[in-house]
Amino acid sequence: MEKDKKSFLFERTDKGTNTVVTVGDVPIGDGRLVLMAGPCSVESEEQIRVTAEAVCKAGANILRGGAFKPRTSPYSFAGLGEKALELLRKAADEQGMPCVTEVLDAGDVALVANYAHMLQVGARSMQNFKLLAAVGRQGLPVLLKRGMGATQDEWLLAAEHIMAAGNHEVVLCERGIRTFEPSSDVSLDLGGLVPLRRRTHLPVIVDPSHAATDPATVGLLARCAAAAGVDGLIIEVHPDPLHARSDGQRALKPEGFSTLVSQVLSVFDSAGGKFLG
Amino acid sequence: MEKDKKSFLFERTDKGTNTVVTVGDVPIGDGRLVLMAGPCSVESEEQIRVTAEAVCKAGANILRGGAFKPRTSPYSFAGLGEKALELLRKAADEQGMPCVTEVLDAGDVALVANYAHMLQVGARSMQNFKLLAAVGRQGLPVLLKRGMGATQDEWLLAAEHIMAAGNHEVVLCERGIRTFEPSSDVSLDLGGLVPLRRRTHLPVIVDPSHAATDPATVGLLARCAAAAGVDGLIIEVHPDPLHARSDGQRALKPEGFSTLVSQVLSVFDSAGGKFLG
Amino acid sequence: MEKDKKSFLFERTDKGTNTVVTVGDVPIGDGRLVLMAGPCSVESEEQIRVTAEAVCKAGANILRGGAFKPRTSPYSFAGLGEKALELLRKAADEQGMPCVTEVLDAGDVALVANYAHMLQVGARSMQNFKLLAAVGRQGLPVLLKRGMGATQDEWLLAAEHIMAAGNHEVVLCERGIRTFEPSSDVSLDLGGLVPLRRRTHLPVIVDPSHAATDPATVGLLARCAAAAGVDGLIIEVHPDPLHARSDGQRALKPEGFSTLVSQVLSVFDSAGGKFLG
Amino acid sequence: MEKDKKSFLFERTDKGTNTVVTVGDVPIGDGRLVLMAGPCSVESEEQIRVTAEAVCKAGANILRGGAFKPRTSPYSFAGLGEKALELLRKAADEQGMPCVTEVLDAGDVALVANYAHMLQVGARSMQNFKLLAAVGRQGLPVLLKRGMGATQDEWLLAAEHIMAAGNHEVVLCERGIRTFEPSSDVSLDLGGLVPLRRRTHLPVIVDPSHAATDPATVGLLARCAAAAGVDGLIIEVHPDPLHARSDGQRALKPEGFSTLVSQVLSVFDSAGGKFLG
Repeated sequence: MEKDKKSFLFERTDKGTNTVVTVGDVPIGDGRLVLMAGPCSVESEEQIRVTAEAVCKAGANILRGGAFKPRTSPYSFAGLGEKALELLRKAADEQGMPCVTEVLDAGDVALVANYAHMLQVGARSMQNFKLLAAVGRQGLPVLLKRGMGATQDEWLLAAEHIMAAGNHEVVLCERGIRTFEPSSDVSLDLGGLVPLRRRTHLPVIVDPSHAATDPATVGLLARCAAAAGVDGLIIEVHPDPLHARSDGQRALKPEGFSTLVSQVLSVFDSAGGKFLG
Repeated sequence: MEKDKKSFLFERTDKGTNTVVTVGDVPIGDGRLVLMAGPCSVESEEQIRVTAEAVCKAGANILRGGAFKPRTSPYSFAGLGEKALELLRKAADEQGMPCVTEVLDAGDVALVANYAHMLQVGARSMQNFKLLAAVGRQGLPVLLKRGMGATQDEWLLAAEHIMAAGNHEVVLCERGIRTFEPSSDVSLDLGGLVPLRRRTHLPVIVDPSHAATDPATVGLLARCAAAAGVDGLIIEVHPDPLHARSDGQRALKPEGFSTLVSQVLSVFDSAGGKFLG
Repeated sequence: MEKDKKSFLFERTDKGTNTVVTVGDVPIGDGRLVLMAGPCSVESEEQIRVTAEAVCKAGANILRGGAFKPRTSPYSFAGLGEKALELLRKAADEQGMPCVTEVLDAGDVALVANYAHMLQVGARSMQNFKLLAAVGRQGLPVLLKRGMGATQDEWLLAAEHIMAAGNHEVVLCERGIRTFEPSSDVSLDLGGLVPLRRRTHLPVIVDPSHAATDPATVGLLARCAAAAGVDGLIIEVHPDPLHARSDGQRALKPEGFSTLVSQVLSVFDSAGGKFLG
Repeated sequence: MEKDKKSFLFERTDKGTNTVVTVGDVPIGDGRLVLMAGPCSVESEEQIRVTAEAVCKAGANILRGGAFKPRTSPYSFAGLGEKALELLRKAADEQGMPCVTEVLDAGDVALVANYAHMLQVGARSMQNFKLLAAVGRQGLPVLLKRGMGATQDEWLLAAEHIMAAGNHEVVLCERGIRTFEPSSDVSLDLGGLVPLRRRTHLPVIVDPSHAATDPATVGLLARCAAAAGVDGLIIEVHPDPLHARSDGQRALKPEGFSTLVSQVLSVFDSAGGKFLG
């Protein structure tokens, strides 16, 4: 941790009080398990409408869907942009759910904020400090994913960039970090949740989809995270994963998501939802 | 994976059938969650007797306790040796439980096998091939921990060393692998359980104690592993952790273990015990 | 590697031909060892002038200096911005050297390009795809640092983002990747230079300063990189490291840099400069 | 570092004095670069004789060759055992060189010590504490390789196990640690040499062969290590790598080794041999 400052806005000052961040009318951090779900990319009006309806019915609280996609290769599908934002918001409104989507660049913050109820800063942008400042200067809550090569210190200080700019509505999202084990390119740092929770009052959710390579692993990691008592999950769901334009291999079908929701809610209740218990 | 052979004894040949390994009268791998518990080191007759009684009462199925301890520093307590084996077995017999303890050297296998119902090969010995062959040539079941720097391939091939020597009663134990995140020295590879289970028919348990630095993290990781549907847990319990001669910082007290047992059994049932979801 | 495309612009098509990227009048990739040096941050006219004179005299070919600094903490010094660009260019011109500086945001590319001869994309921005596209649409050469958690695949595809936008003048810079060893937060991936060079025709340089925690390690890693036959080094030099506003602990003093230049040039010649030899 | 003791035998007590370990008549740690070379496994009298003659002529100081091989798979060639020890010693004697070979088990120490001038404890045995104690109770020098998942702390404490048993003639050997980068399974921790050298007075050599996947990478890493000023190198050489029974893909041919010797000696001299310079 850099020595420039003695205390930070993200830091827990007393043992018991956690911050609750409200997205639309959905509180995150109040002791319940919030479920965010939807496709990796918004691909068409039909696709997002069908998915929104299905995930809402299954019990999801917030709709997710990508409009601006960060892609490792420049030749991969990079999202439909503003058109996707419109379709996402429309589908969310039809189901009465708030929606979250990623913003990639400081210059796009105002545009994305016109449509979304929560702005996601992705793993690859975790240290895009201009973007962090920009989402920090507007009023919508921010979902801050951990970078794949980032320590908890760096992640928390990225949150501090947002908070120092004026926006204290930050939700942290663990999504897996680099590992030497070749069967996966990242490993979900669930053991790290205890020291994380001790240090910060911010809500913490888990993204099992990007730490997994297939639906079975998504399910297993989602159940693990629920047992860990996290504040929420964000899960990729697609009506036709085989034909998805991005991340199809790890997307759940609506029926798989529905089954998973029952499991994770049951596990969460059984575990008592106690993060540090 | 080395190319010397086309198929391995550890490999799954059909989708559904898992191996059940029986320790004393306790089956591991039959769909229930087996609980192994006890102190890091057997320190005295009183200590192991009290612990055995407490963990048995709390629901543990197998008693653990160290007699020969691998210690990073040559100046740390290295266990009471054969005296510890005697005390461990006596305490186990009094509770009607089988017991498991680590064997460090091929030359000690016969001695340890005189007392224990299951022989543990520790993380630091995972590639002690002479030891693997020695435990493979005797009849007791073997608990094979994953090395902190070992890939799944290396771990499974270590199991193959035991099986190729004639002993097919091998239980795998995940206990955390190296990570760059400084808040812990290892990270439990829960996401790796899916590809692992797909490759092998051997039972898989998790050691949350050695992947943790404190009791809260032990509890969280135990609940995660239960949610993942593993075949068992092995947990360090000590009646007086503050005065333990090894690993006191992560040991649960008997009452903490008792609470955890209720949680993990409840989580395991809620999750449906389904490894591959 | 993503399967979206069969061949990439960064890929080597024949064994022998490497790309030479020219910065000002300094060719990178022609078989000589190019030396970039200067302070982490431009702090004052005096500081950058004195440093420029010293590193030029010691044999450096290109002046480096930060104007826009990515800082882990929002409370750390973030650079003097355009004022620093002016001072950097003035100091470079006085010594007849070209200069390189980091650009953090797509919106700043035109401004930085007014002053610099080469634009640096830093480790934390390696997957800022809007920035990659922006530096790809202008004509100056680009220095692309590897992210601390990035695989070679991801790094090369980041170069592809720049090249696909029209700019083929890309120099790769290895600066260390995450490691579990606690004595450093990153480890320089020198062994990876062979597979990297086999895959790409782009020049490759090494930044020993950011893979080190002190001047002795900077020196050792610089000599290692020279022995590996890389196309260049980029090294932090400060006239008064104790009072530097950023990265002082790893900066070399001008006299230390001068000694190092003799060593690395001698090592480079001894090793024969053969990357794949 | 464990808190059980305030000071350790491996620790440097003053800045300048390093331990010199003498193998046969070859001092390691006196400021020169010692070269150990030979095949991964001793395969036949002809093979080891030809190799010994070639590496001696090329400038190697110590002959290496495996008799007891730790193999990841139980179905791989595990060495010729005592027959290999005889052949290794005979070939070494014919060239007037001392020899080093690995010992895998405490029970084999006396046997191996009958033939070898130096006993190697391999990476997979670094925490085989019974073996460490056994090599510590005899008089020959020990080459202690770093485990692939071991921190420097653990490695140095493994040396302490040997020294605490009475043998202070320990040479440390860095051979690469786990990395997330998929192009190699380990990464040579060259930057770690500075903190290592600061902490210990023991000689440190590098094994570039096991950190590499092919001869070009062996050469590059050997030149890097020479530039780092290490006390020695240990390199695999085989007269017919294509038909080697183990590790053929990374073995150098005698002529390749001869070229490499010239390079590394030249690089070592150019760099000034200064580890901390």
